[in-house]
Amino acid sequence: MKIPAVKGTRDFYPPDMARRNWLIDGWKRVSLRNGFEEYDGPIFEYLKMFQIKSGDEIVEQLFSLRDRGGRDLAIRPEITPTLARMVNQQINSLPRPIKWFSVPRLCRAERPQKGRLREFFQWNVDIIGVDDVLADAETIFCALDYLQQVGLRPDDIVLKISSRKMLASLLPAIGIAERELGPLYALLDKRSKIPGDAFEEMLAEQVADENKRKKILELMAVESIEQISDCLNLSDTAKESVDELRRLFELLDVMGVGDYCLFDINIVRGLAYYTGIVYEIYDRKGELRAIGGGGRYDDLLKQFGGPDIPATGFGIGDSVLAILLEEKGLLQKQLPKAEPDFFVAYTDKEFLQKAIEITAKLRRAGSAANFSYKSANLSRQLKQASAQNAKKCIIIGDEFKNSELVVKDMATGKQQLIKLDELFAKLKSELR
Amino acid sequence: MKIPAVKGTRDFYPPDMARRNWLIDGWKRVSLRNGFEEYDGPIFEYLKMFQIKSGDEIVEQLFSLRDRGGRDLAIRPEITPTLARMVNQQINSLPRPIKWFSVPRLCRAERPQKGRLREFFQWNVDIIGVDDVLADAETIFCALDYLQQVGLRPDDIVLKISSRKMLASLLPAIGIAERELGPLYALLDKRSKIPGDAFEEMLAEQVADENKRKKILELMAVESIEQISDCLNLSDTAKESVDELRRLFELLDVMGVGDYCLFDINIVRGLAYYTGIVYEIYDRKGELRAIGGGGRYDDLLKQFGGPDIPATGFGIGDSVLAILLEEKGLLQKQLPKAEPDFFVAYTDKEFLQKAIEITAKLRRAGSAANFSYKSANLSRQLKQASAQNAKKCIIIGDEFKNSELVVKDMATGKQQLIKLDELFAKLKSELR
Repeated sequence: MKIPAVKGTRDFYPPDMARRNWLIDGWKRVSLRNGFEEYDGPIFEYLKMFQIKSGDEIVEQLFSLRDRGGRDLAIRPEITPTLARMVNQQINSLPRPIKWFSVPRLCRAERPQKGRLREFFQWNVDIIGVDDVLADAETIFCALDYLQQVGLRPDDIVLKISSRKMLASLLPAIGIAERELGPLYALLDKRSKIPGDAFEEMLAEQVADENKRKKILELMAVESIEQISDCLNLSDTAKESVDELRRLFELLDVMGVGDYCLFDINIVRGLAYYTGIVYEIYDRKGELRAIGGGGRYDDLLKQFGGPDIPATGFGIGDSVLAILLEEKGLLQKQLPKAEPDFFVAYTDKEFLQKAIEITAKLRRAGSAANFSYKSANLSRQLKQASAQNAKKCIIIGDEFKNSELVVKDMATGKQQLIKLDELFAKLKSELR
Repeated sequence: MKIPAVKGTRDFYPPDMARRNWLIDGWKRVSLRNGFEEYDGPIFEYLKMFQIKSGDEIVEQLFSLRDRGGRDLAIRPEITPTLARMVNQQINSLPRPIKWFSVPRLCRAERPQKGRLREFFQWNVDIIGVDDVLADAETIFCALDYLQQVGLRPDDIVLKISSRKMLASLLPAIGIAERELGPLYALLDKRSKIPGDAFEEMLAEQVADENKRKKILELMAVESIEQISDCLNLSDTAKESVDELRRLFELLDVMGVGDYCLFDINIVRGLAYYTGIVYEIYDRKGELRAIGGGGRYDDLLKQFGGPDIPATGFGIGDSVLAILLEEKGLLQKQLPKAEPDFFVAYTDKEFLQKAIEITAKLRRAGSAANFSYKSANLSRQLKQASAQNAKKCIIIGDEFKNSELVVKDMATGKQQLIKLDELFAKLKSELR
């Protein structure tokens, strides 16, 4: 009986796994050097946890399940609700600021498309407990530190920034009611992904007044922070949000990543829970989906039954990122090569047992070592050693009558005789 | 609204995550040095994949779900079916022997108990394409290489070995029909976990003939391979299985791990798919559940629609292993400490921006660096640096008028003045 993999999931054969490990190890390394600590939660949570405040878009995309006790559960489509739950649970003992990262496996029950799978990995970086825009800057820097590290330049990618706080004060000023904001954000977020007339139709459904619609479109056509700050009659909140945006760009310049960053009022983010700075990362050509995005979500922990604590962070998925790195020729060449330290070969079947013994001893001493199962002739074993990129080949042959082995350097081709005991004495001293 | 985690799952706060990473990184490192390549599959598969040949025990413990297309899926409770599926898919292009490992996240919908959770990680190591018992020996060695590496000695743990092939020829010889073998294996596997009279009652239900039951119990009381080989009338298959066991123990001696290994006819394994050597690893005191187990499963790939290819491998979960390591005092002391290379402190708020700039530059140069968000006084920042185990502290103070910084070695307490440019020039040369 032959059963395929489920559509939209991936099998990670060793070469695919090497790519995935390289991506995720990079995320981890950059997170750590930016002072973030790693956490993770369970792969499934109570279904209602994802219904609290993630907006309808995500709840529609859940893989839900039921346990034997009849409890409704769901595979996590994002890790932020888990983060909120975990932080709330230990809020009194965790030193602040809480700087955490995670590389969770996530699942969404959506139709698979290019760069959008039903199972993926996402790098999440968050700072909790800091309302200063410096925390937004530090998380953004962390994302760009990684993207720069893997070779993406400012002419490859752009991080587009706006502010929900700004929209939340400017949209009411043109007559949009508070309760209309959520659905409007979701719609504005879709704007670049749907045809213009479809968008206008949907906008008309949400905002009946033509004059208001015109003003919304005018607002979304603003091209710089100055255009906003030049406006008369800005509310205090609007002014504050403009100041925050200015300070953010200044900090990103100080951090040396300003070239990657651009103000773009059309960045809104679909999820309901953002409250301040929001951003998304795109390829400059604009051919792919967003590489990642994030922003400030100051109310989320409270909505999850915790205290009133500010928070900001981002997520970057592995799918679009890998497509872009592949397109730019940055992926394959950066993958680390597997290089066993030793390949233990033997000239005759009678030495197989000795080869097994030496291989086991090398491994126990911490070296990567292989040997051939089949008593093939020596030149075939050497070919095998070479195919595996082994650094050295140990050859057990006639010299073994004197407890001697041939050690061949696979790079230079040089061979030398060495006593069995010396080999391990040397290994031990190298480890010391 | 406060929502708890689902029972039987774990939250990995940074200290828990550090433990999990240490365990899993160790599994990976030892697998690689033993010549295995990493793979992984999706977190869910078609439900029917787990129904093929895993025995009823596992199918009862599935978390099943349904996608929008009405397809029945399940979160993987083990990765072996996925391995069989993946290998079958590329069987013609994969060079053999296929030596693969994986560290999958798995879920079982069972009642949580000590060392048995509903979500866990499992180290899986398999060799496909080799029928020689040498492959069984190499996988067993890999498991013991790791367990020895983390400090477990032969008086801490024992690897108990038997053979399904042997039972499959000895049990029919005392009158057990072929179709009765599967359920009998499952029952024998439970023997050590249930009270003696409950076991005998269940055995009587399966085997009506009292004489046969007596013979089964006599067989399961055998204490050495010799007791079997001394029997008259052994079938050829039985003799073969005894020879295999003997050769396996010889190879494990050659590999230097014989002290960990013991013949134990009571090791049967619950799953239906084993065909040859089977083994389980226990703490010597026998206080905990099995740390792991495995064996040969030569028919599985065929059952999954592939060719007739032999295979052998094991799984070791993280839960019982962590409990044992903790009990032996081996866990905490081996965890790597987080040690940022630099902590950037400043004597006055006016230098905060400079601290941000230098921290960002250090990180981009590949160093782990932190700074304080709050303009606390210097001694508090130094305390923070020390609490974080920072190796060096960079202090931005009055000397900065001359573009000079104080660099304090946190271990020795020594301070030196250094020009800003020199700091980064030095870093670059160290990286070269």
